[in-house]
Amino acid sequence: MSLARFLDLADFSAEEVRDLLALAERLQHHPEPQALAGRILGLVFLNPSLRTLASMQAGMARLGGTSFVITPGQGTWALETRLGVRMDGGAAEHIREGLPVLASYCDALGIRAFAEGKDLAADLAETNFRAMAALVDKPLINLESAVNHPCQALADWKTLDDERVPERAKFVLSWVPHPRALPLAVPAAALHMAALRGHEVVVLRPEGFALPAPIMERARAAARASGGSVSETDDRAAALAGAQVVYAKEWGATDPYGDAARDAELRARFGDWQVRESTFARSAPDCRLMHCLPVRRNVAVADEVLDGPRSVVLREAHNRLVVQMAVLYRLLK
Amino acid sequence: MSLARFLDLADFSAEEVRDLLALAERLQHHPEPQALAGRILGLVFLNPSLRTLASMQAGMARLGGTSFVITPGQGTWALETRLGVRMDGGAAEHIREGLPVLASYCDALGIRAFAEGKDLAADLAETNFRAMAALVDKPLINLESAVNHPCQALADWKTLDDERVPERAKFVLSWVPHPRALPLAVPAAALHMAALRGHEVVVLRPEGFALPAPIMERARAAARASGGSVSETDDRAAALAGAQVVYAKEWGATDPYGDAARDAELRARFGDWQVRESTFARSAPDCRLMHCLPVRRNVAVADEVLDGPRSVVLREAHNRLVVQMAVLYRLLK
Amino acid sequence: MSLARFLDLADFSAEEVRDLLALAERLQHHPEPQALAGRILGLVFLNPSLRTLASMQAGMARLGGTSFVITPGQGTWALETRLGVRMDGGAAEHIREGLPVLASYCDALGIRAFAEGKDLAADLAETNFRAMAALVDKPLINLESAVNHPCQALADWKTLDDERVPERAKFVLSWVPHPRALPLAVPAAALHMAALRGHEVVVLRPEGFALPAPIMERARAAARASGGSVSETDDRAAALAGAQVVYAKEWGATDPYGDAARDAELRARFGDWQVRESTFARSAPDCRLMHCLPVRRNVAVADEVLDGPRSVVLREAHNRLVVQMAVLYRLLK
Repeated sequence: MSLARFLDLADFSAEEVRDLLALAERLQHHPEPQALAGRILGLVFLNPSLRTLASMQAGMARLGGTSFVITPGQGTWALETRLGVRMDGGAAEHIREGLPVLASYCDALGIRAFAEGKDLAADLAETNFRAMAALVDKPLINLESAVNHPCQALADWKTLDDERVPERAKFVLSWVPHPRALPLAVPAAALHMAALRGHEVVVLRPEGFALPAPIMERARAAARASGGSVSETDDRAAALAGAQVVYAKEWGATDPYGDAARDAELRARFGDWQVRESTFARSAPDCRLMHCLPVRRNVAVADEVLDGPRSVVLREAHNRLVVQMAVLYRLLK
Repeated sequence: MSLARFLDLADFSAEEVRDLLALAERLQHHPEPQALAGRILGLVFLNPSLRTLASMQAGMARLGGTSFVITPGQGTWALETRLGVRMDGGAAEHIREGLPVLASYCDALGIRAFAEGKDLAADLAETNFRAMAALVDKPLINLESAVNHPCQALADWKTLDDERVPERAKFVLSWVPHPRALPLAVPAAALHMAALRGHEVVVLRPEGFALPAPIMERARAAARASGGSVSETDDRAAALAGAQVVYAKEWGATDPYGDAARDAELRARFGDWQVRESTFARSAPDCRLMHCLPVRRNVAVADEVLDGPRSVVLREAHNRLVVQMAVLYRLLK
Repeated sequence: MSLARFLDLADFSAEEVRDLLALAERLQHHPEPQALAGRILGLVFLNPSLRTLASMQAGMARLGGTSFVITPGQGTWALETRLGVRMDGGAAEHIREGLPVLASYCDALGIRAFAEGKDLAADLAETNFRAMAALVDKPLINLESAVNHPCQALADWKTLDDERVPERAKFVLSWVPHPRALPLAVPAAALHMAALRGHEVVVLRPEGFALPAPIMERARAAARASGGSVSETDDRAAALAGAQVVYAKEWGATDPYGDAARDAELRARFGDWQVRESTFARSAPDCRLMHCLPVRRNVAVADEVLDGPRSVVLREAHNRLVVQMAVLYRLLK
């Protein structure tokens, strides 16, 4: 299997994902430091990054390739993404020129572009990312789009493998507090990944934060294919009972979506959804805590959990490097 | 021919330019991925960049070398360029230390420093860039200075070659609208390049935007050497009649230079100088549209032109990589 | 001698420093362009940098390795360094996740984190840097911490060697003016280095700017081991008489420490401590001027000195590259 694009884990069957992870394992234990010699990866970050920024550069270097980073608005012109507009504002360059040009300088391009968080239909349709992807005629990697983060999902899958979490285990995707609304990309990707891996997946979220129906439905379809299940609840005790994994994640209110005032009002009620040791005490003593990072300590998850033995967040982050090397290898070798 | 510096296309005869472009072609079709192994390019960006930033890094990588980027004021100390000042303001470092130090870490240095846009004589004399160049005892590349952009000019020449535009063809450098005054670097460089290539060059600009006499004279001297011609006009219909290339470019008012209020007043009158399909309809149906990018869509040039078959802007941008690899090769091999 | 960490020159005997400098010399004259092939250096800059940023990348490249740069708050999440806080402010990521994650992507990590400049005891104890270092299980380099800058000190030592400054020569660390308080890192490191090299060291500083007792004591201990001496004075004429080196450096008031208003009041009195040619005229005609850069021209040191023959500041800066290659070699080979 060689790849032309890595945009969405849902483009792959569970078997194809396992095949990619087997390559990741192979490269981890049998390095190929010259595999991508002479190959160049361009990285476009329309939003901040730490893991993706560092691990993509490190991954290319470990395979003998190189990369360059473009951060529009920081040393580079701000990019306009809307079509047909009269560009008399702050953005000096349009993606219609910027992205094909960058693609023409490299062998593969990665793009990070968060959700605008205003128009749910547009975000669910990946309108922005799709418009950008259509401009790139090179291998392309989704470094996080409006409602997707396939590199994170792949790293999380490998982490579940590393932790020997059985495929039928109960996996709870739990909404956790945050000072402000965050995108749906990671919750959507983690939910789909867990469903595709075959878990008994429970989406645990308070009133007003239900994941949009298309995201739930997509996960249910993956679960049907893999023999898993997907349900949702706002009952923390029920959700956590017997859980083997809690995947903590912050996201914005969805009912309605993109209303900052309503979001703030809602989230003010649920500060006690922070994950603490007591969250696990009774019903899930051996449960692992996953989080994609960055995490707001003592807001989303308590120090005691992050610093304790159930946290596998550092392994997840390290696995970003490991799995992305496999993606780069498939795209560029 | 090996090079010590690449600061100005006018340092080269037309024949030497063609020789450099032949090298670019050779490297394009017969890559030398280890030619610059172990060589380091330092890149200093006092102003924003996309193409230059990405293509210089990619070009070094394609030749087996590496590069580092310094962006004063962003992670690096702001640089003072004035001589003799008491440095009690915002800038912590003077170019008199900063540039020799950076040069001492690499094998070649590239510097981008836009015009200050206040004192025409100083900008025309390249006072600022010359002061910086004098501090660097390594091969040096002009990544755009007050009134020059030789990498862009070289890429544009190659684009005209690629498009098989005859040397005697009519080449119109057309002023186009922009929200604010931009530097004279690209218009001056494109004008000189077209004259040196032997074109019938027409500078088309409204009242108040005439290119300064030394820039016109320099182009005329190049035209004399190459058998071309240089004229100027504010008559759009006459200029466009029979044109085979329109090179659209934004620049600030020159009469007077550096007066923002007067510039705004003048440019408010000429918003209809935007390049549209109708610009070409009658008199120049097969005319190509060139632009150095970034371009303000629907301000400087309409979507219909940029997205249509006459636009060669993406080829120009890609040629930045191609020709700069030849420059790097000559400087560092 | 292989190294696990390069955090403090005081971790080394004078003999070990000389051994490291011999390696630097060797690599300078007998390059090993593949020595660190496949090795990756991560660089985390919590504060601005020019020399460190460029020379660390260049040094890795010269040895065949690669590096990536992380600048929290600029394209990367701002980092929280305090333990136990509720992260509901501006910082999205805690060092407890960020640093181990970055370390897991590379083979060695460099960290720059200036003093907070409020709590002298905390700064002297390197509370912040130590907390970060404890999170990194890879070879680690101090790129400047609250009261240390071992890479600078090592480069300065080599500069004294290059200049053939005898070990018993008089070395004056002279406070110089600056618009605002700067950290104690370089004065502390330079003082200790000069003492360890065996100099007759004089700390020349006005009232209110005495270096804290632990910094003085540490230097005195080094001097005792090396046969040098350390004294302090506010008498410029006495200090400069017979000096062979003046190491000019800006730092904040220490009596009290971290009081901006008091600092401003004190420094307003001592603007004439700027180093000028007249500083040397009578008593130290052949004296060299050292400075770690960046330097405020005509505030800290006059143009006439920086541009004259006694200045060795560019050599110091170049030696950053030279000595750091030895450090990287020892850490990563």
